[in-house]
Amino acid sequence: MYDKEILSEKVANTIKKMIIDKKLKPGDKLANEIDLTNELNVSRSTVREAIKILVSTNILEVRRGKGTFVSENPGLYKDPLGVCFMDKKNLLKDLYESRLIIEPGICALAAIRATKGNILQLENSYINIKKEILNNIDHTETDIQFHNIIANSSQNPIINRILPIINEGIQEGYKETKDIRESGDTVLYHHGKILEAIKSRNPELARDCMTDHLSYGMEQIVVKLNALK
Amino acid sequence: MYDKEILSEKVANTIKKMIIDKKLKPGDKLANEIDLTNELNVSRSTVREAIKILVSTNILEVRRGKGTFVSENPGLYKDPLGVCFMDKKNLLKDLYESRLIIEPGICALAAIRATKGNILQLENSYINIKKEILNNIDHTETDIQFHNIIANSSQNPIINRILPIINEGIQEGYKETKDIRESGDTVLYHHGKILEAIKSRNPELARDCMTDHLSYGMEQIVVKLNALK
Repeated sequence: MYDKEILSEKVANTIKKMIIDKKLKPGDKLANEIDLTNELNVSRSTVREAIKILVSTNILEVRRGKGTFVSENPGLYKDPLGVCFMDKKNLLKDLYESRLIIEPGICALAAIRATKGNILQLENSYINIKKEILNNIDHTETDIQFHNIIANSSQNPIINRILPIINEGIQEGYKETKDIRESGDTVLYHHGKILEAIKSRNPELARDCMTDHLSYGMEQIVVKLNALK
Repeated sequence: MYDKEILSEKVANTIKKMIIDKKLKPGDKLANEIDLTNELNVSRSTVREAIKILVSTNILEVRRGKGTFVSENPGLYKDPLGVCFMDKKNLLKDLYESRLIIEPGICALAAIRATKGNILQLENSYINIKKEILNNIDHTETDIQFHNIIANSSQNPIINRILPIINEGIQEGYKETKDIRESGDTVLYHHGKILEAIKSRNPELARDCMTDHLSYGMEQIVVKLNALK
């Protein structure tokens, strides 16, 4: 068992290298099993094992009946920091503290670099949050999308991929703070300020608005954690 | 093949949940294959498949002849952002830009929260960098360790796990900037300043020293990128 396992790991690394060297893009199709078997000179079951490894690390995805493709964000694993294994007690505070360190700087970059397309997306996202709040619909997903667009607007792929951490923060935030959730008015006030600062191309204002938004969230969390003591 | 694959994914998730629910710590031993087979009521080969999935996502590690254990940083995947799949051209600039957003705030937290033990580690790390530079030995690993200790000193597990990104940045930095590498004096000057700011418990000074250090690195990269044009 062990030797075969090591071989499939090796073949997985070879295929990964092929993807990088051939500059395959997300959505590109991988050669089929038989071709890979011939090219790499290993058994078909080893190729299958290797593909399974690459699927479980989100480098490839199998579409039934269609073949194997490069993933949307290859190598970006769901919960890449292993947040689900962390101590839950202080998780929300730790996540907001991290967001307070990371997001204001991202927001400042967005104010400088957002394309017209980015700003349109951000405006639409804001309108959607507003609609959902007015209709009493959960706006968690749209809120995450709003922050994603800001990170995207930084035009920095590393920052763009740090997002899962932020998203996880928002999702955990909503799960844990249902009882002390910000009022719809507060959500709209903060997101509106951020949107305006980015639109006015003012990085320092954008930084401050994001800091205010997250500091407010952090205060709510501290209040809750103290109440639990 | 597909159904079995889906089953092993399910079993992998169940085992992951078991690790979380039973609060198993890094290094804790997992129940053996036979016990898992009985407990989960699936075939031994499915358990093996599930364990392989958890190994490839760095949740478990197999120690030959000893058994299966929870990994050191469970779920923290090597290169969690898939940096190796990114366009190499601007990678170094993107990495330093991300570090400039993230590390000054981490350094400020470290100045507030570093334990006596953390400061001792940081002093030792600085002495080691100095020794290596004086003896003309590559100090990349020690440099990475220095920055790791600072993130550790923040006492925030999320920030601590954002480190691989920073490490990747330093490693890529050294690979790409061998020809325009900072002089030993500059490295010691910047790291010495950071160390002193943390020791003097001055978060704003610590933030500024880290900003200076990284801005200097960024300038070198920009010079190099312009020379390549």
